[in-house]
Amino acid sequence: MVNPFFKNHGPFSIFEIIKLLKINLQTTHKEQVKNINDLVGANVNDITFFHSKKYKDLANKTKASYCITTSILKNDLPKNCVPLVVDNVLVSTSIVTGKFYPDAVYDNFDNSIQDINKTEFKEKVKYGKNVVIGKNVSIGSNCLIGHNTIIEQNVVIGNNCSIGSNSIIRNTLVGDNVKILDNCIIGKHGFGFFPNNTKNLRYPHIGIVQIGDNCEIGCGATIDRGSMSNTVIGKNTFLDNQIHIAHNVKIGDNTIIAGQVGIAGSSIIGKNVKIGGQAGISGHLKIGDNVEIAGGSGVIKDISDNSKVMGYPAKNIRHFLRENK
Amino acid sequence: MVNPFFKNHGPFSIFEIIKLLKINLQTTHKEQVKNINDLVGANVNDITFFHSKKYKDLANKTKASYCITTSILKNDLPKNCVPLVVDNVLVSTSIVTGKFYPDAVYDNFDNSIQDINKTEFKEKVKYGKNVVIGKNVSIGSNCLIGHNTIIEQNVVIGNNCSIGSNSIIRNTLVGDNVKILDNCIIGKHGFGFFPNNTKNLRYPHIGIVQIGDNCEIGCGATIDRGSMSNTVIGKNTFLDNQIHIAHNVKIGDNTIIAGQVGIAGSSIIGKNVKIGGQAGISGHLKIGDNVEIAGGSGVIKDISDNSKVMGYPAKNIRHFLRENK
Amino acid sequence: MVNPFFKNHGPFSIFEIIKLLKINLQTTHKEQVKNINDLVGANVNDITFFHSKKYKDLANKTKASYCITTSILKNDLPKNCVPLVVDNVLVSTSIVTGKFYPDAVYDNFDNSIQDINKTEFKEKVKYGKNVVIGKNVSIGSNCLIGHNTIIEQNVVIGNNCSIGSNSIIRNTLVGDNVKILDNCIIGKHGFGFFPNNTKNLRYPHIGIVQIGDNCEIGCGATIDRGSMSNTVIGKNTFLDNQIHIAHNVKIGDNTIIAGQVGIAGSSIIGKNVKIGGQAGISGHLKIGDNVEIAGGSGVIKDISDNSKVMGYPAKNIRHFLRENK
Repeated sequence: MVNPFFKNHGPFSIFEIIKLLKINLQTTHKEQVKNINDLVGANVNDITFFHSKKYKDLANKTKASYCITTSILKNDLPKNCVPLVVDNVLVSTSIVTGKFYPDAVYDNFDNSIQDINKTEFKEKVKYGKNVVIGKNVSIGSNCLIGHNTIIEQNVVIGNNCSIGSNSIIRNTLVGDNVKILDNCIIGKHGFGFFPNNTKNLRYPHIGIVQIGDNCEIGCGATIDRGSMSNTVIGKNTFLDNQIHIAHNVKIGDNTIIAGQVGIAGSSIIGKNVKIGGQAGISGHLKIGDNVEIAGGSGVIKDISDNSKVMGYPAKNIRHFLRENK
Repeated sequence: MVNPFFKNHGPFSIFEIIKLLKINLQTTHKEQVKNINDLVGANVNDITFFHSKKYKDLANKTKASYCITTSILKNDLPKNCVPLVVDNVLVSTSIVTGKFYPDAVYDNFDNSIQDINKTEFKEKVKYGKNVVIGKNVSIGSNCLIGHNTIIEQNVVIGNNCSIGSNSIIRNTLVGDNVKILDNCIIGKHGFGFFPNNTKNLRYPHIGIVQIGDNCEIGCGATIDRGSMSNTVIGKNTFLDNQIHIAHNVKIGDNTIIAGQVGIAGSSIIGKNVKIGGQAGISGHLKIGDNVEIAGGSGVIKDISDNSKVMGYPAKNIRHFLRENK
Repeated sequence: MVNPFFKNHGPFSIFEIIKLLKINLQTTHKEQVKNINDLVGANVNDITFFHSKKYKDLANKTKASYCITTSILKNDLPKNCVPLVVDNVLVSTSIVTGKFYPDAVYDNFDNSIQDINKTEFKEKVKYGKNVVIGKNVSIGSNCLIGHNTIIEQNVVIGNNCSIGSNSIIRNTLVGDNVKILDNCIIGKHGFGFFPNNTKNLRYPHIGIVQIGDNCEIGCGATIDRGSMSNTVIGKNTFLDNQIHIAHNVKIGDNTIIAGQVGIAGSSIIGKNVKIGGQAGISGHLKIGDNVEIAGGSGVIKDISDNSKVMGYPAKNIRHFLRENK
């Protein structure tokens, strides 16, 4: 994957990287490392990371030339991959990722923006008062952008889209016929950092947000971009007001999500799913296709296809209602 | 009811309407249909809709000249009313409503607005930076409007009102002495559409939002306007921050609603009700007067007057607390 | 405590105050009352209030010269303190507080603001489009302020801070290295008033918001200032998106709060606490240090140090999970 939005500031010599990680390693200092990626995505001359036995099979096949890992896990790496043994794999990975992608660590306001009437979009887009547009933005035909909306850098908007007022978008691919209503914040980094009592260490978010064709995003949504992977909203999926979608979440097509729902990081939601108002879904879960989640539910386990659940923790809706007459 | 804000683009000939619905009907093509309304509100020369046996008694007395209905229900219509038999009554009703009220289907940003200092309100209102005002707006005496606030079209504001900054209001009647704080979005269409795997079909929202005298609306509220009826906030009702009120909800006088509460579509809340933080109320419910709903509760059934409830699903608060010691 | 932001409009003669409260009292009319404060903070020539037996010991030692109280409680006051006996202590206190601090009752938009490029901050701060700054604002070195952000009056921002776009801040002390993301509203009055069927009576909020060094405040936060005390966010505490922190809440250092959490008024949260998404915490509670509260929980009781809780009402997490297999 070539990152569409975040500039890779590499290559860096392996010497620089081992110095950054404060480790000792005998190596030819001049070798260049081109990029950082996960075990599957990394190529020759890239660096990757391996922090859990779960990924042993993937580690065994990685093409990466270097791998940040532990003294135990390193034995599962192939011969072509030089292990960089560290105490905390994720923290070290974060540091190296921040070296390659320094623009992905903090999300300060975009200083590159211009008034839209000073850009090429002046003729092409219908826009309100006080609209500004950042660098590396593309907007299709027949689009509307409301008052005070800020399209920050790294945004691609398809055709026939309507963006509301007071919204802020960055690092996002928007399909065709999409409606994004007012006060939305899309593409900001997620709530991802390593806790540390002196000062928490933020890790880079090099993923983006992808919003499929025909979607509607309600007022006041916050949709964070991914850290290593992307945050994805499938086609024709509709979100009501005040919804929070955390980083790396992937939502299928034709899904309907009512007001004030929150979906925690890295969860995967299927197609044709219906989620009632104020429901919450924990992180790293898999919710199948055609699932119905009643309003107010708290989902803390995977849900298989075609299930209907309710409650906190969410369970089969019939059982829940029988137990709670 | 003459719609105060949405322009009726009719009359249309019945010929146009049956063509739009793709149905066969022997009729005098030149008859004009003036408006669309529900079974009770419709008059001679109007069209109405009848989709459930529940409304049989109302259907029997309707004055409408035409009625969108099914082949079974049509037998309950009076003789003066010509049935238009369709497969899906609500979808067909939505299509016809959109024909009469095309401005009520989508809520793109209001392109009619002007800087307030170019309007009649320049002298009358105290306002912040970057305030804009749409068409068909009226503002009483002694009002304040904060920075970046967008009063879109179709808004009536009473006397002595204070609107905060970064708020967006449209299609709304605001009483006297009302405070609307920052970042609110009031009068936007609700989350109303017919799911369809190719592309969901939005239905028009021809209702408005009414906010009674002496109300306070907290920061970050989203209050959607009604679809066929109005969304109503009673007098002296106070809403805390981050509250979502869906379309067609009606809230009585002197009610107090704490932060992050969500009320789903078409529910009716009584007078002197107290709702604790983060509580959720499902759609189409009736909550009586003087009811107290504990914070975090999930209400999925009607609640009678003077009850105190707690839990998910919400039940008598004493029972809940006894069971959850 | 000298209030850092709200101007004390006193002193007022005791004659004016007893007239305001509509009570009869034999007194030297010319005595001046300097300030209003709680039982502990009040000094000689100040007025205080005493409304519950709980505070008997504090009442007994107050230095205040006057005390708003009831006919029963007055007997616990020291001899140097003249009781002002009223029907409703809190309402009377609110009225007198509003006399001393009239600017703390209502939060209308700040009319004192100027475009930042007309202020001393023009050279010192990096800022976006349409940024405005109120009176009595101080900003440290190396700070960023995003587009459309409104720094209203009474704000002190430390060094190396990044404020996002579309945010509104007032009556707030911000430490060093703080990040406040987009669409936040910080320092507004809380949801504090006395219900009254004709017109609710708002009480003044003379507290402020304090945000410690190294904090991050996510998008769409609402953090209300305190009424009598302050709302405090400890150092290196991170808040995710769409969080609501009510008035007088105090949060310790190094705490992590996930998306859509709500904390009701006057609750105290310890250090190193972790709160999962959508959890809610009732008012006036004490949550100890190192506590973990699972996402979606509803906390209605104090939680002791080092506990892990889950559920609604929240209980020991192991018990909850065992009971809900």
